[in-house]
Amino acid sequence: MKSTPPQDVEIWNVGRFYINMAAVAWEAGKPLVIEQVEVAPPQAMEVRINVKYTSLCHTDLYFWESKGQTPLFPRIFGHEAAGSPSLIVSSKPNSIVESVGEGVTELKPGDHVLPVFTGECKECRHCKSEESNMCDLLRINTDRGVMLNDGKSRFSIKGQPINHFLGTSTFSEYTVVHVGCLAKINPSAPLDKVCIISCGVSTGLGATLNVAKPKRGSIVAVFGLGAVGLAACEGARIAGASKIIGVDLNPNRFEDAKKFGVTDFVNPKDHQKPVQEVLAEMTDGGVENAIECTGNINAMISAFECVHDGWGVAVLVGVPHKDAVFMTKPINFLNERTLKGTFFGNYKPRTDIPNVVEMYMKKELELDKFLTHRVKFSEINKAFDLMVKGEGLRCIISMDDD
Amino acid sequence: MKSTPPQDVEIWNVGRFYINMAAVAWEAGKPLVIEQVEVAPPQAMEVRINVKYTSLCHTDLYFWESKGQTPLFPRIFGHEAAGSPSLIVSSKPNSIVESVGEGVTELKPGDHVLPVFTGECKECRHCKSEESNMCDLLRINTDRGVMLNDGKSRFSIKGQPINHFLGTSTFSEYTVVHVGCLAKINPSAPLDKVCIISCGVSTGLGATLNVAKPKRGSIVAVFGLGAVGLAACEGARIAGASKIIGVDLNPNRFEDAKKFGVTDFVNPKDHQKPVQEVLAEMTDGGVENAIECTGNINAMISAFECVHDGWGVAVLVGVPHKDAVFMTKPINFLNERTLKGTFFGNYKPRTDIPNVVEMYMKKELELDKFLTHRVKFSEINKAFDLMVKGEGLRCIISMDDD
Ligand SMILES: [Zn+2]
Ligand SMILES: [Zn+2]
Ligand SMILES: [Zn+2]
Ligand SMILES: [Zn+2]
Repeated sequence: MKSTPPQDVEIWNVGRFYINMAAVAWEAGKPLVIEQVEVAPPQAMEVRINVKYTSLCHTDLYFWESKGQTPLFPRIFGHEAAGSPSLIVSSKPNSIVESVGEGVTELKPGDHVLPVFTGECKECRHCKSEESNMCDLLRINTDRGVMLNDGKSRFSIKGQPINHFLGTSTFSEYTVVHVGCLAKINPSAPLDKVCIISCGVSTGLGATLNVAKPKRGSIVAVFGLGAVGLAACEGARIAGASKIIGVDLNPNRFEDAKKFGVTDFVNPKDHQKPVQEVLAEMTDGGVENAIECTGNINAMISAFECVHDGWGVAVLVGVPHKDAVFMTKPINFLNERTLKGTFFGNYKPRTDIPNVVEMYMKKELELDKFLTHRVKFSEINKAFDLMVKGEGLRCIISMDDD
Repeated sequence: MKSTPPQDVEIWNVGRFYINMAAVAWEAGKPLVIEQVEVAPPQAMEVRINVKYTSLCHTDLYFWESKGQTPLFPRIFGHEAAGSPSLIVSSKPNSIVESVGEGVTELKPGDHVLPVFTGECKECRHCKSEESNMCDLLRINTDRGVMLNDGKSRFSIKGQPINHFLGTSTFSEYTVVHVGCLAKINPSAPLDKVCIISCGVSTGLGATLNVAKPKRGSIVAVFGLGAVGLAACEGARIAGASKIIGVDLNPNRFEDAKKFGVTDFVNPKDHQKPVQEVLAEMTDGGVENAIECTGNINAMISAFECVHDGWGVAVLVGVPHKDAVFMTKPINFLNERTLKGTFFGNYKPRTDIPNVVEMYMKKELELDKFLTHRVKFSEINKAFDLMVKGEGLRCIISMDDD
């Protein structure tokens, strides 16, 4: 699995293509196969990244299982990761191997980056607004298997193109990413920890810190105690919540959730009445903030209706079934409740994610408790097995471990 | 109609009761009758107010028509008004006529006040919060026809109690109001103008300025161009909106709406497609803010869905039918839209309303354009007729005009 830096550039670097190992999903739901894949050089505004660590997120699993979406295979999944623009490798005086494409001025080989599944072009109305991170150019696109620049893939096996995923495809030693999807981070940050800031942790953390914005002493409810929900709890802990109520159908999650500041646990199955009423009774009328991380439509409605009138703010994070409809009595709004949704925790990938890494460096944000498993790249299917079984939070996949 | 100050205190001030003229609604939908009504002295935390000007608001009309609510008659309506704690009148050395009840320290006879249909006790969690104006003690109660203190009415005709309305009942020369429902205002403010700050103007203005908070240059859509909606437009004008789109089923309202800063008019009846799509097309993807002032559930949904993803904030003001259900796809939230409701423009009656009066005094807020009609108290039924016909915006009822 040691393919970088390549010893024999003539083999590994053919016509500016890299040949490297990548985990290819040939079919929906079938184990990934580690294959020799050619990685084309970066084009304008693209960077070829040497992935050091990646982890598995539910979004990978969801599109790999491909239940309900249009299948797009073969494909290289992976979007939660950390790496570095690859070194310029040349064995002959005139063979220049560019790993930073035309127009890229902010990144150079050796920088440390987190690839992000959604981008920031810095030019569009969204990027220029203070609030939005929903870049017009680089907004998440789960259906696209090619690069924006030329509508082609940078991955191929003997000429057969392999689809990209979320513009990141980090289950590969090398991958090509648009510069707008790369956050340049503190080079002293340990990549095997901060790689999870690339997606799940930021999504939950930002939902709390950037969108719900609990005041010190607030009561916060978090629906769903998976990695994103626990990152929302971590946000509430950092914000100084006086009470963090975890809501989940799985009672086994409560014990681990305590590490993330969760003080109280509510299992909707334990109650006859709607969970919003249970929470209102526990909290003298409602919580200050509720963060919904399951994507279940009933949980969304409960999360909104459990916030206190007058000042409560509920935030939707989880992605629902496309046919789901949010329903509530308008009086719940008129009584001065607020409902907001968020995408990637409202973080702008390039502008804000380096600061999340700094939160970790300053020991404000704790990451170790999310890192429950670690496997070698050759064992990547174990990470899928763990997630399918619902075991652990994040499994780090190390590209270099033997 | 000149009953104040009474010439013959022995007649007008019987055992600390005032006998004054009030417009009594004996039955739902029947013309009010001006009657001699006894007004009991204020009890603890109450103030007896001499009403100078009142105006008619849709909420009066709605409860007078009493379609759907439990009827509560006879009743003295009126809640949008301006007046003054009544003078202490005594013709005998030991007959003290208290018009400021026990425990009231903030107000004295001669002060100028706006009675408000919802109160601010300054003690409860809501009053102590920065955000809420939904006082636990004095929150609007449309079903209560009595005073909080003793559960009794202060109005009677020959011993028969007459119901209060919203704790204000301003269709009476004198009325008794809880001190928590009285905003003490600048004594130089003209009462025949600022009386409309007591309800409708503040509700719409605050929805925009306090809740939607448009930035300078924003595009704001307002659904419903009645007095409240136009006050929301006035808020958008004051905030420096670049475009104010009025949405109403009545095209005749557009001409007058221009005075309130409305630049564009959309009549949903003129379009095949949903109005939210019409607005999105007009505005390159959606408006920054939408304020819903009709209470129609479809308008509420349209108002939410017409705000731009990434940063749009919609605010619900209008009160819907009690069985109405708000429905939308959760993705509309997840794309970073915000939906909030407001009550009385999020103004705290005692703390904030004096500042709205100051906005008028500084000529930031314009009121004259709302004042389309004026009648004498004896002609109060004309004000009802005008509102039933949908003519004009606010009809000032002058208690002193002959
Ligand atoms: Zn993810
Ligand atoms: Zn952009
Ligand atoms: Zn009113
Ligand atoms: Zn209060």
